[in-house]
Amino acid sequence: MAMTMTQKILASHAGLESVTAGQLIEANLDLTLANDITGPVAIREMEKAGFDKVFDRNKVALVMDHFAPNKDIKSAEQCLTCRNFAGKHEVVNFFDVGQMGIEHALLPEKGLVGPGELIIGADSHTCTYGALGAFSTGVGSTDLAAGMATGKAWFKVPSAIKFNLIGSLPKYVSGKDVILHIIGKIGVDGALYRSMEFTGEGVASLSMDDRFTICNMAIEAGAKNGIFPVDEKTMEYIEGRVNRPVIRYEADPDAVYDETYDIDLSALRPTVACPHLPENTKTIDELGKIEIQQAVIGSCTNGRIQDMREAAAILKGKKVKKNVRTIVIPATQEIYLQCIREGLAEIFVEAGAILSTPTCGPCLGGHMGILAHGERAISTTNRNFVGRMGHVSSEIYLASPAVAAASAITGYITDPADVAE
Amino acid sequence: MAMTMTQKILASHAGLESVTAGQLIEANLDLTLANDITGPVAIREMEKAGFDKVFDRNKVALVMDHFAPNKDIKSAEQCLTCRNFAGKHEVVNFFDVGQMGIEHALLPEKGLVGPGELIIGADSHTCTYGALGAFSTGVGSTDLAAGMATGKAWFKVPSAIKFNLIGSLPKYVSGKDVILHIIGKIGVDGALYRSMEFTGEGVASLSMDDRFTICNMAIEAGAKNGIFPVDEKTMEYIEGRVNRPVIRYEADPDAVYDETYDIDLSALRPTVACPHLPENTKTIDELGKIEIQQAVIGSCTNGRIQDMREAAAILKGKKVKKNVRTIVIPATQEIYLQCIREGLAEIFVEAGAILSTPTCGPCLGGHMGILAHGERAISTTNRNFVGRMGHVSSEIYLASPAVAAASAITGYITDPADVAE
Repeated sequence: MAMTMTQKILASHAGLESVTAGQLIEANLDLTLANDITGPVAIREMEKAGFDKVFDRNKVALVMDHFAPNKDIKSAEQCLTCRNFAGKHEVVNFFDVGQMGIEHALLPEKGLVGPGELIIGADSHTCTYGALGAFSTGVGSTDLAAGMATGKAWFKVPSAIKFNLIGSLPKYVSGKDVILHIIGKIGVDGALYRSMEFTGEGVASLSMDDRFTICNMAIEAGAKNGIFPVDEKTMEYIEGRVNRPVIRYEADPDAVYDETYDIDLSALRPTVACPHLPENTKTIDELGKIEIQQAVIGSCTNGRIQDMREAAAILKGKKVKKNVRTIVIPATQEIYLQCIREGLAEIFVEAGAILSTPTCGPCLGGHMGILAHGERAISTTNRNFVGRMGHVSSEIYLASPAVAAASAITGYITDPADVAE
Repeated sequence: MAMTMTQKILASHAGLESVTAGQLIEANLDLTLANDITGPVAIREMEKAGFDKVFDRNKVALVMDHFAPNKDIKSAEQCLTCRNFAGKHEVVNFFDVGQMGIEHALLPEKGLVGPGELIIGADSHTCTYGALGAFSTGVGSTDLAAGMATGKAWFKVPSAIKFNLIGSLPKYVSGKDVILHIIGKIGVDGALYRSMEFTGEGVASLSMDDRFTICNMAIEAGAKNGIFPVDEKTMEYIEGRVNRPVIRYEADPDAVYDETYDIDLSALRPTVACPHLPENTKTIDELGKIEIQQAVIGSCTNGRIQDMREAAAILKGKKVKKNVRTIVIPATQEIYLQCIREGLAEIFVEAGAILSTPTCGPCLGGHMGILAHGERAISTTNRNFVGRMGHVSSEIYLASPAVAAASAITGYITDPADVAE
């Protein structure tokens, strides 16, 4: 039976020769992930169920990123719970303030996820690692507890949608525009419980950071996972990071897909998702003049070095508009350090932006840039639901780092080409 | 009648030839200050009292620093109130995210306070500007409202204590150790409603940043203000910042002081204030082994460039202890930028510390490093009251940047000389 790329990874981890869409399987996990919000819940569930150890202290990751450095006593207590658990179980991959970063940028960077692997995380954007040709998906804290304890999880094998990528991206258009365009096309439930498999000659032109951004938002179309084929860029990325054998799975040529979409990358324009759903997309040309009070550049979606470089290229030698609070958040300590070394940090601060230490922060209304009533933000994050970033009457427009940076300069949502020299 | 330095400034601003301790006077203000916590209260009071304009739009400063970038909806609303007020009254010195910094580091840096001037601020550490030979003091939000509207305030003229500084500070001993030593000696009410006038040949050896730190904590001895004579270092500091005539007031040689203390700077040791009062001081030699979970280097007390340099000198090429969250917070955007340019930012991140954008943050339990139950921090901030930085069972030890950095490396409160090469 022909299988999709995702199905091949699932079959292999279930010890089966093949699987078909809809089949229930139990699969072995290569890594489990929780953060400072979901970790404490999973830990309590695990202890309540009577498990007194983790299945493999090398394969459990705990990342303090959502409300860290701690924003209040409650979040401090949550981190303490994780810290104590990590100490007790000698969890190798516990990431605290100072070693940390946003989980979905950090785990690939640290080589904790690799091609062909199977990862679950108690965070919806765990689907990010599909960029590396892994199967990864978000689960609830209870499922994560079982996974941490047993190293196994149940899955219903998903069917898939194929996205056939053609051509390459124009200037000022990046992975964020690709995924916003797709979500605009298929809707926030367009890929419900299915795999989004990206393929075609256009893949080669996409950077790894573009691919991370695209897979990261697969969940915003309802997908079980997003996944890219493994190519030379993937292998180059994992070189020196993933020090274990990896398997490059490929979809069978005759694998069956529910649907196939051709996406012409070269035809894409900077794309913005208007309030209050990621599917409410418009190209920058259709948008009209939308004033903003805040610009956020960062998150597990767009806090990587390419994102920082693209934003800095726009902001270099310019000033952000007075009254536009511009908050740049590199996703990990390593990216932050690279921003300093490459001169990007200086560009941001000279432009009148602030550079925050890595944190999920404002993306989920945590801290470091919450909106008051009636305020509007352009943001490179992944969700623009009602009240996501603050007051219920505030509004979020989702866009790429280039668009967010350009908008910070003018004070309204702007095509990067219009401010670039 | 002979006057102290403070009394001379007050007399001149009240249009009087002389004043005496205990006298009630109405004085003209050169600047009023409020922040994102006290600003909204003052604004409401001002509006309630029927004032519809500020006395001088150039002499009202509003600094968004305590819970900014905003940590929650409430703090976002507070900033919005200040922002709207600043817009309505065309307040020139409104400092928002991106132009901002911690108020008491920012105002001197921007040249908004100068020798001989009289400043009130709705923040207790407004006494900082005494370092420049100004009279500055903290007031309640209602008094500030009246000040913003009328440009005047009532004062009871304080008597003074003289601190005669002798010699110069040894290596790894700084302004923080001077003021902690003094508070340990006279107690948290040792200077209640009085001026702390620093004088003597030892003054010349103290940097401006040392003087800011010393005056900043005058309030922790209960003082109305702290004040330094104006010398060449002061004039050098204000060069290019304060572009208006300044007056160098000097105490009369026969001015009367309630008490005089001789402080031999050369005899001071790194000094730590133990929980839960700034007067609970011990020298580093008397302290014993006190383990810590967090180190904070920053605040209006110790977030200036000298503080950053002293911490970086200790941390350079070293790593902070695993499980010691080390949070470095330059006090202003300018200092942050200087940290990047001088290579300090890189040193901090390479050492495993995080570098936060300017904010008061953890100092007052706001955000960016709140403590869980039973946790202990070494901190360069100014208050170690019960629960000040988080849970009521957490503990704060106050110290200099050098001590905090050394402690971050070892995991317990440490003499900088013990880790320095």
